[in-house]
Amino acid sequence: MTATNEYPTKAYGATAPDSGVGPMDITRRGLREDDVLIEISHCGICHSDLHSARNDWGFTTYPIVPGHEIVGTVSAVGDDVTRHKVGDRVAIGCMVDSCLECAHCEEDLEQYCKQGMVGTYNGKDRRDGSTTFGGYSERIVCREEFVLKVPDTLPMAEAAPLLCAGITSYSPLRTWNVGPGSKVAVAGLGGLGHMGVKLAAAMGAEVTVLSRSESKREDAEMLGAHAFLNTTDKPAMKAKTGYFDMVLNTIPVRHDVTPYLNLLRIDGVQVLVGMIDMMPEMHSGVLLGRKVLTGSGIGGLAETQEMLDFCAENAIVPDIETIAMEDIQTAYDRMEASDIKYRFVIDMESLRSS
Amino acid sequence: MTATNEYPTKAYGATAPDSGVGPMDITRRGLREDDVLIEISHCGICHSDLHSARNDWGFTTYPIVPGHEIVGTVSAVGDDVTRHKVGDRVAIGCMVDSCLECAHCEEDLEQYCKQGMVGTYNGKDRRDGSTTFGGYSERIVCREEFVLKVPDTLPMAEAAPLLCAGITSYSPLRTWNVGPGSKVAVAGLGGLGHMGVKLAAAMGAEVTVLSRSESKREDAEMLGAHAFLNTTDKPAMKAKTGYFDMVLNTIPVRHDVTPYLNLLRIDGVQVLVGMIDMMPEMHSGVLLGRKVLTGSGIGGLAETQEMLDFCAENAIVPDIETIAMEDIQTAYDRMEASDIKYRFVIDMESLRSS
Repeated sequence: MTATNEYPTKAYGATAPDSGVGPMDITRRGLREDDVLIEISHCGICHSDLHSARNDWGFTTYPIVPGHEIVGTVSAVGDDVTRHKVGDRVAIGCMVDSCLECAHCEEDLEQYCKQGMVGTYNGKDRRDGSTTFGGYSERIVCREEFVLKVPDTLPMAEAAPLLCAGITSYSPLRTWNVGPGSKVAVAGLGGLGHMGVKLAAAMGAEVTVLSRSESKREDAEMLGAHAFLNTTDKPAMKAKTGYFDMVLNTIPVRHDVTPYLNLLRIDGVQVLVGMIDMMPEMHSGVLLGRKVLTGSGIGGLAETQEMLDFCAENAIVPDIETIAMEDIQTAYDRMEASDIKYRFVIDMESLRSS
Repeated sequence: MTATNEYPTKAYGATAPDSGVGPMDITRRGLREDDVLIEISHCGICHSDLHSARNDWGFTTYPIVPGHEIVGTVSAVGDDVTRHKVGDRVAIGCMVDSCLECAHCEEDLEQYCKQGMVGTYNGKDRRDGSTTFGGYSERIVCREEFVLKVPDTLPMAEAAPLLCAGITSYSPLRTWNVGPGSKVAVAGLGGLGHMGVKLAAAMGAEVTVLSRSESKREDAEMLGAHAFLNTTDKPAMKAKTGYFDMVLNTIPVRHDVTPYLNLLRIDGVQVLVGMIDMMPEMHSGVLLGRKVLTGSGIGGLAETQEMLDFCAENAIVPDIETIAMEDIQTAYDRMEASDIKYRFVIDMESLRSS
């Protein structure tokens, strides 16, 4: 064992479903031999943060400190740490541990660890059973394998949302071999969707934004999409029947996925990355023409690092709005009103100086 | 143009949703230059025949002559025919024509012809607009490209069900690269399912039959399955969570596919080939672990020929019960009661001699 000193840490969290998110004091564990201490510079805000703080999904343990789009700088390392050193620019995404020994972990799919990956917040530490606290805080302690490198050319604030919104969009594009000439449609233009557009375009795909709202047409173009398809325009939708290789569906609310399946070519794939809800009844016949419906959740450690490097090489960053920690509730309210292009990022200096 | 003489032909068909299927006289067209005349020896009975005769799906044109699992012998050919000659053992499946020019036809996916494939019955002839009549008849005339070869070693009666039940099971196994060591589960043990077991086993897969009914355990083993999983046995189902590469779902009625998705490994695939109905609501979360849901319908011409050759090489035939044409209604009744292992085949001599 290395240091035994714990780290008193300022954070923001919720104490009950209706408490809202406010200041609280937490303690970060003293460094284990394989731990890294990170001073957090920025943390992105994900819809999951809001749902978890309010216990919308029914499995929140209170108190909860949200935040799983974390970037910062290494300030100390445990005795056995070899991957990182003090001063390194690093990041943590949605998980802080897994068994690293099961068949899935062996395949770099730690997010599907057979023993369960440990969430960055609202998770249970594998060694002492304590509840994990996320990135709405000054600092965090994390097992070195789960700490990623932020390439030098990526600005820290913009890098933060890559750790969830970025990898969640990137992973299915890779899994399904999107590349030059692929015809990719992105449904939903929020944190995930706007990254989907940028990433697919950078991979060489022909990218179309699907939206019910004509107001997104200009945004789509600015993000690098090659086309816009208004899903309420029935003749336009019909004209694209069987056209796309992939629909990346980032729409976060319950909806019928049938219209998007109809847009796919034979063996085309619709990947759900947004909706976590019951899907309305759909007719099996829509799948019979070898249309594929699947889903995807974040990515493994190696793939997340690959995504960060890809973004650095291709100069891709999310469009963000930086806020102070104390403005979190306003940010949540605006997220619920879809009043953000496209991701809020908390500047953690605001917490340190509060 | 070749012959202009039409062929008066005895057949069995329905004249209205409630007419039942009975004797009728039809006329087969005189041979076009690319047509083949086939004396039908056997025709398999598919659930679609029953549904179409009764107009269960709402798009039947009467009179209708069902039957799309057709085998027989060539008795005449049009002037330009090169693929077949008098005396050849041949077969016709679910389609008798397509444009053969679109992108899908060019890829040997005639079943998904962009102009629409012409069904063997209840279809519309591409040249004269007449309604096509199926295999419950003495003879049939068909464009040579849509006539397949029956390998010498395949018995004619047993070959018939391969043309629909066989290819519908075979095609997704090939599409998703089932081979030695693949773990394949087959849900539903009827005409399609029993062929799925035999075909997957012949491809080298480890095959498990999924059923609610313990009575299927012995049947599964006799068909060559390596294991049986009772889907009502919750601990047994849980033990196989994430185990299978593929679930071939042949269940023909509305049901929840969620339990089968849970059985899949990451990137595992559930292929629906039986259900043509609304699917009950399902939670999108079940797909998030990269579980794939898709469907498949029959196969293209080249793949259907490949399947016939594969069955000949591997000595695979369906388990059938041969009936006389006049017993069709009894066969339908028994099919609805699932009282058939596993496919009825009509011996067309019974019609000729009637």
